[in-house]
Amino acid sequence: MSSSATSLRAAVVLCGSGRGDGSEIHESVSILTHCARLGITYQCFAPDQPQADTINHLTGKPEGPARNCLVEAARIARGIILPLTELEAGDYDLLLFPGGFGAAKNLCTFAAQGPACTVLADVQRVLRAFHAAGKPIGLACIAPVLAARIFGKAGGGPGVTITLGAPGPSADAAVAMGATHRPLAVTEACTDQTMRIITTPAYMDDEATPWQVFTGIGKLVDAAAAMAAKR
Amino acid sequence: MSSSATSLRAAVVLCGSGRGDGSEIHESVSILTHCARLGITYQCFAPDQPQADTINHLTGKPEGPARNCLVEAARIARGIILPLTELEAGDYDLLLFPGGFGAAKNLCTFAAQGPACTVLADVQRVLRAFHAAGKPIGLACIAPVLAARIFGKAGGGPGVTITLGAPGPSADAAVAMGATHRPLAVTEACTDQTMRIITTPAYMDDEATPWQVFTGIGKLVDAAAAMAAKR
Repeated sequence: MSSSATSLRAAVVLCGSGRGDGSEIHESVSILTHCARLGITYQCFAPDQPQADTINHLTGKPEGPARNCLVEAARIARGIILPLTELEAGDYDLLLFPGGFGAAKNLCTFAAQGPACTVLADVQRVLRAFHAAGKPIGLACIAPVLAARIFGKAGGGPGVTITLGAPGPSADAAVAMGATHRPLAVTEACTDQTMRIITTPAYMDDEATPWQVFTGIGKLVDAAAAMAAKR
Repeated sequence: MSSSATSLRAAVVLCGSGRGDGSEIHESVSILTHCARLGITYQCFAPDQPQADTINHLTGKPEGPARNCLVEAARIARGIILPLTELEAGDYDLLLFPGGFGAAKNLCTFAAQGPACTVLADVQRVLRAFHAAGKPIGLACIAPVLAARIFGKAGGGPGVTITLGAPGPSADAAVAMGATHRPLAVTEACTDQTMRIITTPAYMDDEATPWQVFTGIGKLVDAAAAMAAKR
């Protein structure tokens, strides 16, 4: 695993801090660590809104008042975070989304509505803006459903090839949204060269180790950075 | 960076999830990721008690009711966590502590009392038990003050050499507790071969990148694992 210097700038979209109600922590840290390895300057963003719920991660059950996506995500970002409304595609070279249930509950309604889900307006806006500018977009774990919903043929988009790991209900839902699903192992990443969209299964494989997740996300960040550097 | 197979078992002590009031998230994930890289099976533990405070990580200010160390740490551990009372040195080969202000507020009173701090009874118990068994102990960031307090000459201990990064107030406090301080860069680790205690500065260097922290913690875990394997 090599490090190198670059002047690339990445925007990372978080939505809380924890697999059950926000951004998956290992995936988020893996994204930031690989950006730093490649010398990519990163800036985190999150919606300044309540999470869909708060999950007690010891019991797995909902508990207490909803926490704020931006305030909780600041734990992962160590303060290097801004409201998602302030993210402009012109300021960055690549766009990265970790997974976690928050991606399916706070950034869109996939957890509740599956293929009929709606995507948060600001998430739609930044996905379309980076794509229109030809800037690569990387999504881990369940976050690729965002790309499936926005760019899939069911919504009138051009279609997109993504991975959500092994075949299963989430992959079926992505196909229903008009995406092509490519089954992959956690340590691999899927690149749609035409759409400039890179995805990796991460903790879609619930048995994965943090090192396997880190390895797959490393391939995602490497591919997105190489694509951004060639623009 | 190589991976390898081993049958080593690590106990990782957390105390919340976030640099301001719990375990530093990047450091914690780096520890778990490097354990997984080496094939070390890990089990997280945390005190089942309220955090000293809850910090809003966007503003850096205290806010709302205290959260529980164990419940919040479960976000980092992805559920692989037990109360610290259940940690027995006989069940593990090495003991690892990430930093974060929680290590100085929840695991001991260093943040408020400096060299005169007291250490949580269960933290004292496990530090002494692993040490007595000759099992390596690794501590990152501010967590080495726990070793300074327990094993430093000021408390009647044998003394211990640690790093807290650059010279400064925390290093001075460690010396006041009867430890020897070795200034080191974030990407390095300090090994006290006699005491079998390994430390790394991590985010004691506030300008460090996640990749630098990951690199230093990698050296810490490598050294602790090599020491545990030779027992």
